[in-house]
Amino acid sequence: MKVEHDRSGTLRGFASDNNSGISPEVLNKIKKLNPGHVVGYGDDEYTEKAVEILKDNFGSGSFPYLVFTGTGANVLGIAAALKPFHSVICAETSHIYVDECGAVERFTGCKLVPVETPDGKLVPEMLKKYMVGFNFEHHSQPRIISISQASEMGTVYTIDEIKDLADFAHSYGLLLHMDGARLSNAAVTLKRSFKEITSDAGVDILSFGGTKNGLMAAESVIFFEEALTGEFKYIRKQAMQLSSKMRFIAAQFIAFFENELWKRNAQNANLMAQKLYAAVKVIPEIKVTQKVEANGVFAIVPKPAIPLLQKVFFFYPWNADTGEVRWMTSFDTCEEDIAEFTERTKEILSGL
Amino acid sequence: MKVEHDRSGTLRGFASDNNSGISPEVLNKIKKLNPGHVVGYGDDEYTEKAVEILKDNFGSGSFPYLVFTGTGANVLGIAAALKPFHSVICAETSHIYVDECGAVERFTGCKLVPVETPDGKLVPEMLKKYMVGFNFEHHSQPRIISISQASEMGTVYTIDEIKDLADFAHSYGLLLHMDGARLSNAAVTLKRSFKEITSDAGVDILSFGGTKNGLMAAESVIFFEEALTGEFKYIRKQAMQLSSKMRFIAAQFIAFFENELWKRNAQNANLMAQKLYAAVKVIPEIKVTQKVEANGVFAIVPKPAIPLLQKVFFFYPWNADTGEVRWMTSFDTCEEDIAEFTERTKEILSGL
Amino acid sequence: MKVEHDRSGTLRGFASDNNSGISPEVLNKIKKLNPGHVVGYGDDEYTEKAVEILKDNFGSGSFPYLVFTGTGANVLGIAAALKPFHSVICAETSHIYVDECGAVERFTGCKLVPVETPDGKLVPEMLKKYMVGFNFEHHSQPRIISISQASEMGTVYTIDEIKDLADFAHSYGLLLHMDGARLSNAAVTLKRSFKEITSDAGVDILSFGGTKNGLMAAESVIFFEEALTGEFKYIRKQAMQLSSKMRFIAAQFIAFFENELWKRNAQNANLMAQKLYAAVKVIPEIKVTQKVEANGVFAIVPKPAIPLLQKVFFFYPWNADTGEVRWMTSFDTCEEDIAEFTERTKEILSGL
Amino acid sequence: MKVEHDRSGTLRGFASDNNSGISPEVLNKIKKLNPGHVVGYGDDEYTEKAVEILKDNFGSGSFPYLVFTGTGANVLGIAAALKPFHSVICAETSHIYVDECGAVERFTGCKLVPVETPDGKLVPEMLKKYMVGFNFEHHSQPRIISISQASEMGTVYTIDEIKDLADFAHSYGLLLHMDGARLSNAAVTLKRSFKEITSDAGVDILSFGGTKNGLMAAESVIFFEEALTGEFKYIRKQAMQLSSKMRFIAAQFIAFFENELWKRNAQNANLMAQKLYAAVKVIPEIKVTQKVEANGVFAIVPKPAIPLLQKVFFFYPWNADTGEVRWMTSFDTCEEDIAEFTERTKEILSGL
Repeated sequence: MKVEHDRSGTLRGFASDNNSGISPEVLNKIKKLNPGHVVGYGDDEYTEKAVEILKDNFGSGSFPYLVFTGTGANVLGIAAALKPFHSVICAETSHIYVDECGAVERFTGCKLVPVETPDGKLVPEMLKKYMVGFNFEHHSQPRIISISQASEMGTVYTIDEIKDLADFAHSYGLLLHMDGARLSNAAVTLKRSFKEITSDAGVDILSFGGTKNGLMAAESVIFFEEALTGEFKYIRKQAMQLSSKMRFIAAQFIAFFENELWKRNAQNANLMAQKLYAAVKVIPEIKVTQKVEANGVFAIVPKPAIPLLQKVFFFYPWNADTGEVRWMTSFDTCEEDIAEFTERTKEILSGL
Repeated sequence: MKVEHDRSGTLRGFASDNNSGISPEVLNKIKKLNPGHVVGYGDDEYTEKAVEILKDNFGSGSFPYLVFTGTGANVLGIAAALKPFHSVICAETSHIYVDECGAVERFTGCKLVPVETPDGKLVPEMLKKYMVGFNFEHHSQPRIISISQASEMGTVYTIDEIKDLADFAHSYGLLLHMDGARLSNAAVTLKRSFKEITSDAGVDILSFGGTKNGLMAAESVIFFEEALTGEFKYIRKQAMQLSSKMRFIAAQFIAFFENELWKRNAQNANLMAQKLYAAVKVIPEIKVTQKVEANGVFAIVPKPAIPLLQKVFFFYPWNADTGEVRWMTSFDTCEEDIAEFTERTKEILSGL
Repeated sequence: MKVEHDRSGTLRGFASDNNSGISPEVLNKIKKLNPGHVVGYGDDEYTEKAVEILKDNFGSGSFPYLVFTGTGANVLGIAAALKPFHSVICAETSHIYVDECGAVERFTGCKLVPVETPDGKLVPEMLKKYMVGFNFEHHSQPRIISISQASEMGTVYTIDEIKDLADFAHSYGLLLHMDGARLSNAAVTLKRSFKEITSDAGVDILSFGGTKNGLMAAESVIFFEEALTGEFKYIRKQAMQLSSKMRFIAAQFIAFFENELWKRNAQNANLMAQKLYAAVKVIPEIKVTQKVEANGVFAIVPKPAIPLLQKVFFFYPWNADTGEVRWMTSFDTCEEDIAEFTERTKEILSGL
Repeated sequence: MKVEHDRSGTLRGFASDNNSGISPEVLNKIKKLNPGHVVGYGDDEYTEKAVEILKDNFGSGSFPYLVFTGTGANVLGIAAALKPFHSVICAETSHIYVDECGAVERFTGCKLVPVETPDGKLVPEMLKKYMVGFNFEHHSQPRIISISQASEMGTVYTIDEIKDLADFAHSYGLLLHMDGARLSNAAVTLKRSFKEITSDAGVDILSFGGTKNGLMAAESVIFFEEALTGEFKYIRKQAMQLSSKMRFIAAQFIAFFENELWKRNAQNANLMAQKLYAAVKVIPEIKVTQKVEANGVFAIVPKPAIPLLQKVFFFYPWNADTGEVRWMTSFDTCEEDIAEFTERTKEILSGL
């Protein structure tokens, strides 16, 4: 099946995969499950079905909970395993460190420890220096290593890389958390099932995202340790992430897995990123800075061109000093977008 | 215009006004605003339009922010005005006190002070004894009086009652917060505009609900003091209540105000509550315990009948000791529901 | 041995038992343990000795930790057993509810549930209505019942009353916390050992106070469940209650138990309260409002007399509306104080 | 006047300046102010006097508050200026970042941003990259730059360096916080008054320490902006740092400034650090790693020698990988300590 593209909207852009709308299949599913009364707050058959589907995809030892936002999924999953004197070690580019306005710190009271990386990916070697202070009451106690898959730099951990991190974490008694806001994109890249790249690889807690891949507002926290789940329902409620009309978050996930919508959407986004990459890497003024492994392209662009380019295809600068920018493709990016953007870019660059 | 009723769903009930689904007009609006890209996180024209509509309805001095949940709206609105050493005075039946798993305490660190009421409504006379300890560092400092309109007991504050509370609060330097999860129902009862029953009556901070009146998941925090808004955007983000695809919360509110959908929905719910009240008050075994002023009916029912009734029309017990139950009507409750429920109730009671 | 009285200070009063100074024995002990270096933060032989003494007095199954303040002891002991979605049930007169500026809420994120009492003492019958909402994610989960011994109203729980509360708490899976800021006074009244009135009676977590009974600034948290202790050291540090020069808190507790200083001090305070009670109860204009069972006397005094009396012997009003006042005696209150105060009171009352 | 040395204690060491005891003058002052009753919680003449002395030394625009611990002073001073969505930028070696078990994060909910430094000192150039994300709701908002004087590496900021940091902070609307746990040592090094090196240099919030310089447990938070003080009393109480018998913290500070005890103590500590430095720098196997500007000496020592040395003079390793250790001198370190330590060190090294 092919993804339908509707370019009739107000604006096209590469700002973020959440600037696109909702996959039509998802809206149809919401409409279909709308009639009648069901018990609120997730005690309904649709939510039960969505949870079953997630368990089918992530393994029988997975415990999924539905929430509204990616920040919510990250914070709540982490909070379930933390006491306030714990710390979380993460890449300094990670969403939890730089893009959530300190939500983890506020909600958990914990310390986040940022680690510098070249490509958004942690490796055990970088983490050894932080494995100190255990049992010493003056130090926040390391408890979670958090990685993003795909990373915020558009790179993807291999399964072996994840396993190495999981082994490393577990050898110190830590847990491995994965921010999977773009897990679908990584799964497509790795050509492996969700289960293989998460629970089978040693991940303990997962934020599994839908919103950036065609859902309206639907994310989930999936635990791969039953011990972490016992009190999660209270955390979700207290954190304001429990939907009263839960069936409609459930509907989105049900649609996500029908006919592998998640895969079709992510395949399109990844493919468009490759096409964008192919188009810009041959432009002499542009220097691509990261491997293109998911649905993001990072590149250094002549600074005067940036505001001009943003006017035609909106996107965000990544590093104002160096002129690095980020272009994200999404489930509804289409070849016309790439072509038009490339053409305009060339025009603008030649006119500088 | 008439509200369409679709009784084809899996279950009918009076458990809560959030057990019903989404008004069709709302789904249509989401679909209509779906195509194309817009900037995420509320920086889009649809959110701008929704905010303008809210300002039109609540007054030019109102500052609306969209969020996902009612608990979120309450917690965030309150948090914007509080420091951790403040306290919030509220009815002991209030949603923030009993139904939010302590979310206000967790997110703000503040104390909630519960006040016993006969009908869910605060009056100044009850509050005087709590107006103590000002400037005394050993006491949490009273900062907010929070009321629910309509109340959790199905009663409605008159405008004069709100004004009295606002005057009382302001005379001590406190703010008046209103949990308006069911504000539409109250507005219909009072036959007054939203502005007249909130900002004009002295309310400082409002949670304005949509979800219990036909929206999918759309609530808002509305400040009537500009000073409270300056940093609210950070609070919303940090509290995990900022939607990346904000346009779809906006779409719900846009639909809410088109052709006064909010009013038609609430009128139906209130009318059905009156019909339910009329039907049950003449049943000798049933004793209605609260005035029916919005969309809830509270009644004491012979205890053995409760589980039998719940099987046919799901609802929640309110007080297990006394046999008091709560029946909520909603935008899609219809006369057939009332008739069927009344008939089954009579059967069950006669069979005890 | 007799308590030495030094009336040479700037002011005498009944404001609080913390308005008195330090028992000379305590200062001597601090001086004695001062020379030389010891490892900081409690890893020293004096702290070890203080802990051993506390274990001797509270039972081998007790786990004591030293802190600075009574509020600190309460908050930390409670925090060790709570997650943010829990609640603590306490008398509405309790120190944790009204006198700690919301410290429990801020530090734990939990809800405090106040219970009205006639005399500051909880009984199981009052608590039954709060034993609801278990396993229901919308409600804060009851986790601790907290009582004060002696109570804030100068009354004392009997051992049987404590056992009943402990049994009640445990039958619902809750813990019993005791704020023992004035435990010495209660022990003297009950003529029983600390162990008999705490761990033997079913208390799970104790704040054991010294400051109100002649120490400078020394309190302790004592757990009677080993499971609660594992991570307490991090909580104490993170809560800013870990003393770097811990030996000097230890020294205070060592002195407290030498020659039963705690008992001599509390006996004096209690005796003086009885003498004060005997002196004022025969004054017709004064109505004693609570049983005098520890070191506090509560009485209603003609309102015009209050400010006049406060000038000669400082004390706090308890209820401005009724004219109720609180008079606290302490380890250094002496008969001359009682005589002088009684005399002046009579003069002032007769001059009204 | 000379500092009296009593080497009769159980152990000598260079573990920390808080392993030493209390200056005799301080104990004498506590004893002198002990008799009689004074109102609790700081509303007494001794506290008033201590505050006046602090204002005399730090300037009339300073607002001092007394607390128990250095961590408490840091956390509370910072908390007074922060909302949970703010961030604090600090050296990665700073006490607030590594030695307080995440107390700032827990109490404020804020993010701490660590900056790598060669010598524990921040300079504006290092901070520029963090001056981003202002007004962007996804980012924690930079609000405080926090420095330690003397630094945790034993180095001291010059007044010009502090001024540069203050100017830098203020130019971005940030505040400059100084952790002055060892401010006395820095003042001695700089040969300038407290006022000149804090308020005159642009510091906004100061933790002024006494415990590491001969007090028992006495620290203070000093604001140089009146706007920051209004609600501090609630923060101190809620944070469990309000002493009921405040006069005894006051007594310590009164003694601290009589006959410049603080200066005599710090001069001794600094002088002993210089003597220790002189003694070890000529030992070939030892490499001093930091400038010795206050009362700490950092050096790399052959790893096998470390445990042997720790047995005779206790101290802490700083970096287990490199063999770097930290030796702190204190007000009661004496020449015999240096001589003995040097001698034993040479013996141990020659015996390896």
